[in-house]
Amino acid sequence: MAVKENLRPGGRSARVQASVHKAVRELLAEMNRAEVTIPSIAARAGVTPSTIYRRWGDLQELLADVAVERLRPDMPPIDAGSGKADLQAWAEQYAEEMSSGPGREMIRDVLAAQAGANACKCCEYTRQQIVLIAERAKARGEAFPDVDRAMDEVVAPIIYRILFGDVPDAARVRALVARAMDSAS
Amino acid sequence: MAVKENLRPGGRSARVQASVHKAVRELLAEMNRAEVTIPSIAARAGVTPSTIYRRWGDLQELLADVAVERLRPDMPPIDAGSGKADLQAWAEQYAEEMSSGPGREMIRDVLAAQAGANACKCCEYTRQQIVLIAERAKARGEAFPDVDRAMDEVVAPIIYRILFGDVPDAARVRALVARAMDSAS
Repeated sequence: MAVKENLRPGGRSARVQASVHKAVRELLAEMNRAEVTIPSIAARAGVTPSTIYRRWGDLQELLADVAVERLRPDMPPIDAGSGKADLQAWAEQYAEEMSSGPGREMIRDVLAAQAGANACKCCEYTRQQIVLIAERAKARGEAFPDVDRAMDEVVAPIIYRILFGDVPDAARVRALVARAMDSAS
Repeated sequence: MAVKENLRPGGRSARVQASVHKAVRELLAEMNRAEVTIPSIAARAGVTPSTIYRRWGDLQELLADVAVERLRPDMPPIDAGSGKADLQAWAEQYAEEMSSGPGREMIRDVLAAQAGANACKCCEYTRQQIVLIAERAKARGEAFPDVDRAMDEVVAPIIYRILFGDVPDAARVRALVARAMDSAS
């Protein structure tokens, strides 16, 4: 089910969304995710369960929507002085966050929803961070790999390893970044 | 919950497993996955629900166990005459299978289980196929990338793109294989 985008800030719809998201975050912090239900979220948010069903379709879609919101980067990548240093600092932090308990839960929630819209959004957030790094590198006159290539060679192996049971350590992440950077020079 | 490995073929435990797996496959073919329950699986398999709970813990673990079994390759990669041709043929088929409806459902089931054991097993099956291709290439005296590198540069981007909403087409898969092969020459 598609979640409405571009809600008018402060509008009734935006207030409902903010209140439901807040209720989900609070309940997930207080109890096991298996215990979180739509009626309990509705009660906490002060809306009716049917408001939630109408808007999100089912619990899994709502959890995915909240997870994506939490995966949205809250600041641009750190400027570490060069494209390579920027990509390395970003990738190390990304690998660390995504392989943490909450990071894994969020990826799982995003991927568990039937509609793929949230997974795309999540990938797009990551891509935007790489675009920012690439633009800064370009402004400095540095060689930097194509953004798609950085996604394939740095982001994809990090996520694949996290999902399939082999957490990438910092040395591994640095090797991925070095390889992707070599391809650009 | 860990599922017992290396069951004695034909033993009682192996027969229970085969019968439960068969029941799951049949039910998934007949109805929506949301309608499949442990009691319905138990009834079809001719075992008690508690047998299933004891052995698999919960429905998600059982679905993951069945999905991994279906993801196990049933033959070695096609010998297409060279390491590059072998890897290309294998990767195209892999991308096609994994991005199909059933392929996505299987990946989702494997990843949704809390215990990571099945995800590791799934990754290991894939790795073994690449090892076979690498060994054949070596026997022919050809250059072939390190298996970890082929996992990072070919398998990871295929799965990342499938999971995050951008199905890799054949041209994309060929480009990934060509790049990985270049790294070895």
